[in-house]
Amino acid sequence: MLKNDLLLRTARGESTERTPVWLMRQAGRVLPEYRAVRMNAGGFIEMVKNPEFAAEVTIQPVTILGVDAAIIFSDILVVPEAMGLPYKMVEAMGPWFEHTIATEADLARIHVSDGSEIKYVADAIALTKKNLDHAVPLIGFAGAPWTLFAYMVEGKGSKTFSKAKQLLYTNPTLAHQLLQMITDTTIAYIKTQVAAGVNLIQLFDSWAGVLSPMQYNEFSIEYIKQITDAITTVPTTVFAKGAFFARASLNKLSCNVVGLDWNMDIAESKVLLANKVLQGNADPCLLYADEATIVQQTEKMLHDFGPSGHIANLGHGLYPDLEKSKVKLFVDTVKAYRHGSK
Amino acid sequence: MLKNDLLLRTARGESTERTPVWLMRQAGRVLPEYRAVRMNAGGFIEMVKNPEFAAEVTIQPVTILGVDAAIIFSDILVVPEAMGLPYKMVEAMGPWFEHTIATEADLARIHVSDGSEIKYVADAIALTKKNLDHAVPLIGFAGAPWTLFAYMVEGKGSKTFSKAKQLLYTNPTLAHQLLQMITDTTIAYIKTQVAAGVNLIQLFDSWAGVLSPMQYNEFSIEYIKQITDAITTVPTTVFAKGAFFARASLNKLSCNVVGLDWNMDIAESKVLLANKVLQGNADPCLLYADEATIVQQTEKMLHDFGPSGHIANLGHGLYPDLEKSKVKLFVDTVKAYRHGSK
Repeated sequence: MLKNDLLLRTARGESTERTPVWLMRQAGRVLPEYRAVRMNAGGFIEMVKNPEFAAEVTIQPVTILGVDAAIIFSDILVVPEAMGLPYKMVEAMGPWFEHTIATEADLARIHVSDGSEIKYVADAIALTKKNLDHAVPLIGFAGAPWTLFAYMVEGKGSKTFSKAKQLLYTNPTLAHQLLQMITDTTIAYIKTQVAAGVNLIQLFDSWAGVLSPMQYNEFSIEYIKQITDAITTVPTTVFAKGAFFARASLNKLSCNVVGLDWNMDIAESKVLLANKVLQGNADPCLLYADEATIVQQTEKMLHDFGPSGHIANLGHGLYPDLEKSKVKLFVDTVKAYRHGSK
Repeated sequence: MLKNDLLLRTARGESTERTPVWLMRQAGRVLPEYRAVRMNAGGFIEMVKNPEFAAEVTIQPVTILGVDAAIIFSDILVVPEAMGLPYKMVEAMGPWFEHTIATEADLARIHVSDGSEIKYVADAIALTKKNLDHAVPLIGFAGAPWTLFAYMVEGKGSKTFSKAKQLLYTNPTLAHQLLQMITDTTIAYIKTQVAAGVNLIQLFDSWAGVLSPMQYNEFSIEYIKQITDAITTVPTTVFAKGAFFARASLNKLSCNVVGLDWNMDIAESKVLLANKVLQGNADPCLLYADEATIVQQTEKMLHDFGPSGHIANLGHGLYPDLEKSKVKLFVDTVKAYRHGSK
C-alpha cells in the first residue's frame, strides 16, 4: 500500500535494498519553507493546534529533502496540557508552565486524559495521511513519561532537572502516581494516533540522561514498558537521549527500534541492543562540516551499522541554523550508499 | 606533615583506615557563611581575585563540614582571561565572553600565558596553606582544554555547545592550535599552583559529554594527556563529566584518580578504570532526600566502591539550594562508615 515502506520493513527486522533515512526535527526551522508557514501561523503552538499547518510542514521534508518517512508535526507537551497543565513557548527560553506538580493537591487538579483534548493531532494525522498519498510512512510520537514528568514538576527546561529529581527522592509515591497518570494518558493518546493512521510510534525520553541507572529503571523504564506493551499494532521506537547506561534494559523491552545518540559507540550498542533495530546516530554538528567530510563520515556510520537493522538518522534533532543543502546531502548520501560497495 | 592525609594516600593507591570525602562546590552557596563573604566581596569574580576572600571560603567547608580536603576557591575561566579573553558572570546566565575565537585573526589576539596574570590564585593558595595549618590537603584545579575551548568559542554556557563543536568540523587546524595554546597555558598555570603548595590537581572536563567518542579522543584526551604527563610531583585527578564512553581511554592516562558522575555504574567503572582510584559518584539530588535515605544510599555507594581505591564525592557539584545539614550528613556518613561492618 505504501510506495516506500523501507522504514517499516527495516523496523520489523527485514532486510532491505538500502538503509532508510529520516531526521529528528526534519519538519523545522532548518527549512525556509517551514519558517514561512510558522510566520503565517503566528507561532509554534499555533501550528501544532492547526491540522492544516501541521500537515503542511509534516510533508515538507518528504518533498524537499526526500526522506523515507514523515513525522507528524506536534509537541510532546500536548500531553501535560491535555491533563490540565497548559504551557507557553517563551522566546529564547522554551516551554514554561504556569502551574506545576509538587503536592497531592496539585495532582488532584489534573486528570488522566483519553486523548480527546488532543484531537487536533489525530486530525492533523488524518489530513497528512490523505495528502501524503501513501508516499512514505507517517511516524507518530509522544514524550516518555519521565520526560513529561520532568517538565510538569520543573515547569521549564533545565540543565539538571534538579527540582523534578528532588521529587523522586522526597515523595516517590507521588512521583509514581503522576508517572502512572502520564502513562495512562500517553497510551490512550497513542491509540488515537494509531487509529488516525500513523505507521510507527516513537517515544522521546529527552531527559533520560539526568537520572542514575537505578532511578532510570524505577521511574522511566517501568512506564515505557507499559506503553510499548500496550502498542501492538504498529512498530515502536524508543529514543532515550543520554541513557547509555540503560541499553541492556532497553534491549528487554517489546519495542522494535532503539534510537542512539552520537555519544554511543555503534559496535558496543549493537552488542548491548542485540534484539533491536538501531536508529541514529550522526552528530548534528557533522552537518556544519564541508561536503567531503559529511559524505565520508556518513558513509563510515553506515558501514559501522552494517547492511541491516539500521535506520539512519542523527543522534539528536537538527539544529535550526544548519544549511538545508547540507541536510539534504546527508539524506542523499544515505540513499546513494550501497553496503559492500566500499 | 599533614594531620589528615587520607585523600593523598588514597589517591596514591594506598589502603587507608576509611574512605576520604570531599565535595565538588563545597566552597559555595550551600554554606550561609560563604554567602556572607560573597555579599561582602561584591561578587563571584571579586572573590576569585582576592586572596583573602578566596582563602576564607576555601577553608570554610573544612571547618564547617569536616571534609578531608580543601579545594582552592577559584574558577576555570581564569585561564582564558589570562590568555586575553576576559569574561563576566551574568546573573541567571553564567559566564559571558565579549570576544570569542572564530578565526586565525582571533587567535593572533590571544597569547600563551606563563600564569603570571593569574598570580592571585597562587597567592590565595599560599595564604590558604598557611591558614589551614596542615589540617588537610589542598586541591588545586584547572579546566580541561576542551572545556575551556568550548567557552572561548561559544562565548557562554550552552546545552549543546554547537558553535564550539562546529569549529572542530569546519577548522580542525585552528581548533588544534587553540587547544595547544590552552594546554601550554594550563601546564604553566598548574605548575604555579604546585609551587604555591597544592597537594593534588584536579582537571574538570565539564563539557566532555557533548563530544562523540572519536572527537573526544582527538580534541580532548590528547591534551589532557599532555597535562597529566607534565604534572609529576603531585597526584592528579581527571573528572570528565558525561564521558562514559571514554573510560577505557582515561584508564590509559598517567593520572591517579578518575572522577565519575552518577550516571556511571560503579561495578562497570571499576572494570573499565582498573588502573585508577575512583572518585564520586552520588547524585547531588540524593541530598534533597530524608536523612534515612541519604544514609542508606551513601552506605550503599561506599559498599559498592569497596574499601580501597575510592574517594567519596558527588557526581557533580553541590546545588546551591541544598541544606547544609544534609550535606554534612553525607560527609558524616562517609566518615562513620567502616567497610566490612555491614
